Amino acid sequence: MGKIITFGEVMLRLSPPGFDRFSQSNVLTMHFGGTEANVAVSLAQLGLDAAHVTRFPDHALGRTAAGYLRRYGVDTQYIRYGSLPTGQAEGRLGLYFLETGAGSRASQIIYDRADSAFARIQTNDIDWEPILTGADWFHWTGITPALSQGAADCLLAGIQTANRLGVPVSGDIVYRSNLWQYGRRPQEIMPALTEGCTLVLGSKSLFSELYGVVGSTFQEAGRALMRRFPTIRYVTDTKRTSVSASHNQLSAKIFNGSTVYRSRMHDIQPIVDRIGTGDAYVAGLIYGLLTFPADLQRAVEFGAAASALKHTIPGDVNLATVTEIETLVRGDSSGKLRR
Amino acid sequence: MGKIITFGEVMLRLSPPGFDRFSQSNVLTMHFGGTEANVAVSLAQLGLDAAHVTRFPDHALGRTAAGYLRRYGVDTQYIRYGSLPTGQAEGRLGLYFLETGAGSRASQIIYDRADSAFARIQTNDIDWEPILTGADWFHWTGITPALSQGAADCLLAGIQTANRLGVPVSGDIVYRSNLWQYGRRPQEIMPALTEGCTLVLGSKSLFSELYGVVGSTFQEAGRALMRRFPTIRYVTDTKRTSVSASHNQLSAKIFNGSTVYRSRMHDIQPIVDRIGTGDAYVAGLIYGLLTFPADLQRAVEFGAAASALKHTIPGDVNLATVTEIETLVRGDSSGKLRR
Amino acid sequence: MGKIITFGEVMLRLSPPGFDRFSQSNVLTMHFGGTEANVAVSLAQLGLDAAHVTRFPDHALGRTAAGYLRRYGVDTQYIRYGSLPTGQAEGRLGLYFLETGAGSRASQIIYDRADSAFARIQTNDIDWEPILTGADWFHWTGITPALSQGAADCLLAGIQTANRLGVPVSGDIVYRSNLWQYGRRPQEIMPALTEGCTLVLGSKSLFSELYGVVGSTFQEAGRALMRRFPTIRYVTDTKRTSVSASHNQLSAKIFNGSTVYRSRMHDIQPIVDRIGTGDAYVAGLIYGLLTFPADLQRAVEFGAAASALKHTIPGDVNLATVTEIETLVRGDSSGKLRR
Amino acid sequence: MGKIITFGEVMLRLSPPGFDRFSQSNVLTMHFGGTEANVAVSLAQLGLDAAHVTRFPDHALGRTAAGYLRRYGVDTQYIRYGSLPTGQAEGRLGLYFLETGAGSRASQIIYDRADSAFARIQTNDIDWEPILTGADWFHWTGITPALSQGAADCLLAGIQTANRLGVPVSGDIVYRSNLWQYGRRPQEIMPALTEGCTLVLGSKSLFSELYGVVGSTFQEAGRALMRRFPTIRYVTDTKRTSVSASHNQLSAKIFNGSTVYRSRMHDIQPIVDRIGTGDAYVAGLIYGLLTFPADLQRAVEFGAAASALKHTIPGDVNLATVTEIETLVRGDSSGKLRR
Amino acid sequence: MGKIITFGEVMLRLSPPGFDRFSQSNVLTMHFGGTEANVAVSLAQLGLDAAHVTRFPDHALGRTAAGYLRRYGVDTQYIRYGSLPTGQAEGRLGLYFLETGAGSRASQIIYDRADSAFARIQTNDIDWEPILTGADWFHWTGITPALSQGAADCLLAGIQTANRLGVPVSGDIVYRSNLWQYGRRPQEIMPALTEGCTLVLGSKSLFSELYGVVGSTFQEAGRALMRRFPTIRYVTDTKRTSVSASHNQLSAKIFNGSTVYRSRMHDIQPIVDRIGTGDAYVAGLIYGLLTFPADLQRAVEFGAAASALKHTIPGDVNLATVTEIETLVRGDSSGKLRR
Amino acid sequence: MGKIITFGEVMLRLSPPGFDRFSQSNVLTMHFGGTEANVAVSLAQLGLDAAHVTRFPDHALGRTAAGYLRRYGVDTQYIRYGSLPTGQAEGRLGLYFLETGAGSRASQIIYDRADSAFARIQTNDIDWEPILTGADWFHWTGITPALSQGAADCLLAGIQTANRLGVPVSGDIVYRSNLWQYGRRPQEIMPALTEGCTLVLGSKSLFSELYGVVGSTFQEAGRALMRRFPTIRYVTDTKRTSVSASHNQLSAKIFNGSTVYRSRMHDIQPIVDRIGTGDAYVAGLIYGLLTFPADLQRAVEFGAAASALKHTIPGDVNLATVTEIETLVRGDSSGKLRR
Repeated sequence: MGKIITFGEVMLRLSPPGFDRFSQSNVLTMHFGGTEANVAVSLAQLGLDAAHVTRFPDHALGRTAAGYLRRYGVDTQYIRYGSLPTGQAEGRLGLYFLETGAGSRASQIIYDRADSAFARIQTNDIDWEPILTGADWFHWTGITPALSQGAADCLLAGIQTANRLGVPVSGDIVYRSNLWQYGRRPQEIMPALTEGCTLVLGSKSLFSELYGVVGSTFQEAGRALMRRFPTIRYVTDTKRTSVSASHNQLSAKIFNGSTVYRSRMHDIQPIVDRIGTGDAYVAGLIYGLLTFPADLQRAVEFGAAASALKHTIPGDVNLATVTEIETLVRGDSSGKLRR
Repeated sequence: MGKIITFGEVMLRLSPPGFDRFSQSNVLTMHFGGTEANVAVSLAQLGLDAAHVTRFPDHALGRTAAGYLRRYGVDTQYIRYGSLPTGQAEGRLGLYFLETGAGSRASQIIYDRADSAFARIQTNDIDWEPILTGADWFHWTGITPALSQGAADCLLAGIQTANRLGVPVSGDIVYRSNLWQYGRRPQEIMPALTEGCTLVLGSKSLFSELYGVVGSTFQEAGRALMRRFPTIRYVTDTKRTSVSASHNQLSAKIFNGSTVYRSRMHDIQPIVDRIGTGDAYVAGLIYGLLTFPADLQRAVEFGAAASALKHTIPGDVNLATVTEIETLVRGDSSGKLRR
Repeated sequence: MGKIITFGEVMLRLSPPGFDRFSQSNVLTMHFGGTEANVAVSLAQLGLDAAHVTRFPDHALGRTAAGYLRRYGVDTQYIRYGSLPTGQAEGRLGLYFLETGAGSRASQIIYDRADSAFARIQTNDIDWEPILTGADWFHWTGITPALSQGAADCLLAGIQTANRLGVPVSGDIVYRSNLWQYGRRPQEIMPALTEGCTLVLGSKSLFSELYGVVGSTFQEAGRALMRRFPTIRYVTDTKRTSVSASHNQLSAKIFNGSTVYRSRMHDIQPIVDRIGTGDAYVAGLIYGLLTFPADLQRAVEFGAAASALKHTIPGDVNLATVTEIETLVRGDSSGKLRR
Repeated sequence: MGKIITFGEVMLRLSPPGFDRFSQSNVLTMHFGGTEANVAVSLAQLGLDAAHVTRFPDHALGRTAAGYLRRYGVDTQYIRYGSLPTGQAEGRLGLYFLETGAGSRASQIIYDRADSAFARIQTNDIDWEPILTGADWFHWTGITPALSQGAADCLLAGIQTANRLGVPVSGDIVYRSNLWQYGRRPQEIMPALTEGCTLVLGSKSLFSELYGVVGSTFQEAGRALMRRFPTIRYVTDTKRTSVSASHNQLSAKIFNGSTVYRSRMHDIQPIVDRIGTGDAYVAGLIYGLLTFPADLQRAVEFGAAASALKHTIPGDVNLATVTEIETLVRGDSSGKLRR
Repeated sequence: MGKIITFGEVMLRLSPPGFDRFSQSNVLTMHFGGTEANVAVSLAQLGLDAAHVTRFPDHALGRTAAGYLRRYGVDTQYIRYGSLPTGQAEGRLGLYFLETGAGSRASQIIYDRADSAFARIQTNDIDWEPILTGADWFHWTGITPALSQGAADCLLAGIQTANRLGVPVSGDIVYRSNLWQYGRRPQEIMPALTEGCTLVLGSKSLFSELYGVVGSTFQEAGRALMRRFPTIRYVTDTKRTSVSASHNQLSAKIFNGSTVYRSRMHDIQPIVDRIGTGDAYVAGLIYGLLTFPADLQRAVEFGAAASALKHTIPGDVNLATVTEIETLVRGDSSGKLRR
Repeated sequence: MGKIITFGEVMLRLSPPGFDRFSQSNVLTMHFGGTEANVAVSLAQLGLDAAHVTRFPDHALGRTAAGYLRRYGVDTQYIRYGSLPTGQAEGRLGLYFLETGAGSRASQIIYDRADSAFARIQTNDIDWEPILTGADWFHWTGITPALSQGAADCLLAGIQTANRLGVPVSGDIVYRSNLWQYGRRPQEIMPALTEGCTLVLGSKSLFSELYGVVGSTFQEAGRALMRRFPTIRYVTDTKRTSVSASHNQLSAKIFNGSTVYRSRMHDIQPIVDRIGTGDAYVAGLIYGLLTFPADLQRAVEFGAAASALKHTIPGDVNLATVTEIETLVRGDSSGKLRR
């Protein structure tokens, strides 16, 4: 029980220490992350078997990225490494630069991910059958099809294989307009990917924008989405109020076609690292759906608490433990010293 | 006026920088601390003469620990160093690993103090008579008798010598159940230690658990404790409300057998380092009792303000000055830049 | 349009990392700053041409200080370097040591600026005519005349040259009593400097203390100041409520002789670095006066927002961009991640 | 081809940065290492499948240690975690403190490994059969039987299982007299462990001390050892000349019963990190024996070059690549920049 | 006298601290560099006016790169910033990752510079006429034409403008085969660029490979090159013997058509940072040619000494002073403490 | 046996990490040092009782400097703190900035010590009688009388008190011409200070320059010095050959009026920190003279070995142990790992 497959790009993240601006620092702190890999790490930390599928350039930094995932418990055996016939690495490692804000100063990201080894992936790079055989879950996001035709094709093959093998599929249909540079619009690509999904994470405005599916409430929009894509059993979303870069409020909800389950609202202050908090929710929710599938209320609370805790952890990935999350699910946010 | 003797283990504390989890960091920040030594450092910083009695292994780290105390003004001449006939160090330096939490994520400690040079202490290692002669105060805590029979015996000898020499004794009767591994229960050991105390720090539930002394309020329980141990002139305790790992509220009270004096409540946000904040209270209170003994209200305010300020200082020891504490005692918590 | 000249000492600032006390750290973080140079850097970051006039010792640290200003866009061609006939540097680089507080613990500064190369400046060191020709603004503060007779004389020459060339002059009349060690009182020196000012930053109590000008409100006091010094077109000030070292509230106002324009109040939490926040206000206001001179409300809001943002940026200088400041002027303090 | 099993303790290593002495630093750099695990990491970096068998306390630091091995490619599935029925971790993580010397100042180690979770291992903690089935090599060292009876027993079971399954066994018979505290002498324990070995690393003085086997040259002593333990096919050793803590010379030799093959001598300057350089030799040699078994000269050169390169790499483990080692085997020690 | 223009890409360099491998570090040290900009910084440090022409993306990192050059005295007014009509930055900042070797372990570079804002440069981005008017020198290298057709075209326009304006031109004809990915061969591009050169840095094998110009000695090959390109007055080259990554030997020579002047050989140990040492030579030589043009021996010694000193300075750029270089030119390599 | 008193200024030393130049770094490493205090720390580390007499400003940095000495075992009870009647600190803490060179690049120091609290010392600040009573040695250097008349006077009083009390006095007669700014020449001041010395450290050229005492060899010059100052029993000096900033050779000699004892020559490579190596020699020699007074050969070897080891230790003070020094005295410079 509990083998999860995720697929997507992993980037090296580089950030000035503390609250330094880019123009001030002379060192950059390294983390690695990517929305789907973040989910894999989080699930591995929760004790499940998670394997991430991606493609790196075959050089020391690509290998280091894989080592980063492995260190946190993710199975990296399906990772592919791009190399040229000359033995040189092929493609680059995607990067992003993060400057951490505080108070009324926003954090900012400079992406530098174009033409990565992952973006150059081709359908035949990944043989999905052996990877997904025996899996309990497959997760993807809207970032992947935005990167390149190859990534979109490869993802579609993965989803279809999962469907054929009866593996549940979750899709976080996040839409970033400044990606999608390869000539296709998300409306052309996303519906086919959403086709075989069991769970979709997104807002009703996204449902409308991507699929033309409308509803005046999340519940109605979710119901409409389920009509459009009958495999979908759950739609879910988070709600964030940004008081400042250091203070957010977060809650989540999940709709199973009949009932909307809502988590309590978490008041998060201070924020140590906001990156990957949505992925932490997804991972917590998947953990809940796999571990206590009958209790959606508990699952959405688990996901929301996981996300809340991620805000206190540096880096993209959630290193909170089941015990810590359950403490918060029980309503204990006192942060009392544990000896 | 103002020579204080403290006795207890000093540990090397190792913590990942900032809010990093143990699994993330590749460096650990060093501090040294121990509940009784923390009191000594704090008193030395307040300008009193404080000497700490402990036992270290006779190696570079043991010597470094002593240097740490000395740097902050503590007299280290009574420290003993364990060595084997071969010249090699005997016993180890106790350690603890601290991961600093934030918001709803709790800080956590992994102790690694078993079988330290201090735990191996024997009664004849310390000749209390010259140490306590001329002293104005002796302070101990419930950690020491929990570590080993030798430590408990040695402490008892110290308390009894203090009593004989007329040196006031304070005991912080903290009870940590995961210590006490050497075969004795605190109920067997603590009463004899409490026997000669002038001041006891503890809660009424502790009074009940350790001595079977009960009372429905702190005042009543305190009065009962004083009946049981007639040398006790003061019982004191702090009250902490943990809003989150980054936000606490703290106040203190002291009971002299007739009146309970309560400090104002300090709202503490953000918390830089919560460790040693109780010890900072004890030190502040002892400072008050020695410096303005007639004014218990001022003493308890001084202790509470000292503790509040400790929350803003990295490490186990309180480096706040008398001026800073008095500013806060006067109600000025504005933190205005001093030039 | 938009060439600003500033004049004053630049110091090397040395501070223990994070919230460490001076007694704890074994490294010090370097920044450079000085109230007038901070204004220059801020204006350069906002896209205007700013040149700073100062004097450094002619050694590696003096050159490094100039490089610091240049890196952030300030024109350093007018900087003078003190050297002896032997080729050795003459004078020292002013320093200050900053310990950063938190919560109820105040930050503190130890100044070490006596006898700097700047304090040794002589009138003939600076030829103001070519520097100020074509300039759009000249800014000075009350720190400079407090340092030495030479600095005061040199500043007076600068102001008088600016007046002659028709360059608007702003003066931040800050008064620090522990400076002014060279035998003159500010009341003897400041009036002549204020003589030719277009804009004065100060409180009504300062107006009274320095010039004997009184008024029961800021408006009345400002009006009185304008009567005394008829060149003054604007008086301005900020108002800060210090909840704690980590939490301040800040607003600003400007009076043009007829109307007081008040900015909204900014709630600032957490404070990353409070140093230079007043200078950030001045720079923001000058930017506003030069860029949208007809809109005093917008100018004071721009200045206040600039100052608020500076609190989130390490170091003395404001590195906020026009876009960031305008976002906050528009009332968006949500700090939402920018990708 | 190429699955190697190693067995032994892994410690957290803590060292002051650069050349700081213990008494100077306030931060310690973390690495993890242990002689057998070092071999595993090195082999994993060379592209072989290596799994390390050990036992950690079941807490965050124990898990971090496992993550460290995994990050560098070692299979950690056979690691056991000690926990008490209460869920608390059982045993501690072994530690050592390393101060790095330079020139004529020696590096020094303070061990703090007593009573670790590994030292508490029991025979039934490890089920060797499934671990060793299909393995190509098993490696142990003389450190393990020195730690505790349980460790010695467990190792013996491993060696015997390997013998039964036909897995070649290598033993580095290093003898550290300050270990062996549990009441047995190495002469009682080591012979049985050496019994089933294929390869032994040690000097002729060790052969004499541990087994009473003598010979006037390495060759003769090796031949005598092979007579005593007929499974041994190879004896090997390194030779180090220590010019200073920053400059060593190193070579290696291997004897197969008929011929001694000697590597060239490597002049190593500067030394970045001397720890684990012997293990790097062992790993390189095993790599050679598994990858080009017919060419002992090449194998010993490969091992020696691997060891030489390890001296330039911080930490206990060798992160040199096959390409780098082969460059040095070919005699190119020019260190020319690779782009 | 002494205005030098350089043209080429500037990259952000990221390197693990000390001798850490890429796989070990969690922080990267930042420097900026590029072969031509390195020359500009070095010349600015020597007191000449140097302006660098390049193109950055118009984002915080691009601006930071410019600030880096400015801080070290380079005029950045001619730098262009790429932005899209949307206001977003256009193109990326070129990067390279550097791992520093030691002893027999080579340093290695992973380039990540494809498709940078500089590589996207177009001829009309740079208006050479005003830039080169009044200049005393123009310097380019073979890296620039290797990056893109646009860069090659832009460079050619610069050289031709320089020729028209009578500005001497130096070309470092370095050839890197793994660049040149845009479809042209260096043999097609380099001759036209070399056409107008006054000084060429290269080896006789490069003369042969790029221009088909041969000679059995450097002198003969240089003479042949001068016949082929009659504007060339000097050919120069350095000679490096790499004992190890920590120990090199370096000398230089220059040929003026009649005589070869050779510098003394510098024994360099330890090497702190080898990157940019060739550029330091070029800068030193240009300084010599501009400052004491009649003394070629002194110029080549100055260049070689500048290069030798660069090996001791972290980063890509040479921060050695004229005084330091002249001390070494005089043969004083004792490194005696200067107070 | 073994109480040593030293007297002199202690400065805060600030240095860029590693081999960074001043212009590159944004952090400075802190150490404290001063030639006489360095001797005190070294002697304390060797196990003797050493007390340092100095004067600091009464602020956090002055207190931190004292804490630094105390941490390394120096008795700080005689330190005076300058404060004004207002309670503010009086005088400043002397500073120096150190940039560490390598190879042919020299280290350089920028002093910033003028007008320190120590330079402002007055004769009546120090009551020498109780300090020197019972002392076994008093040490001073030529730096102190160079700083101010007050410092010179105070030193003279100390030497005369020592003479009266029969305490042996050593003087390191180092002459730094860029000190001596207060209007006196060393020739006016030094003879009276040298009057009561037992041991003088200096070269024959210094003997000539300061006292007009000449001799063609060290022996002859020493003999002449002893004639001039009959209390002198020993003259001593070190000899250093500076191969490069990273490689020195060092030996020492001592002359007792009849015989010159010479240490062996130490080849020191690499040099970690050259500062304070002369003071380490003095401390080692004093240790020898106090501990094995009959064996001058051993004493000079001990001093030279102490100095050699100091080159490997960061900071101004020698933290080598007796064991380490004796190992080197025995000729073992192998730097073999100690476990």
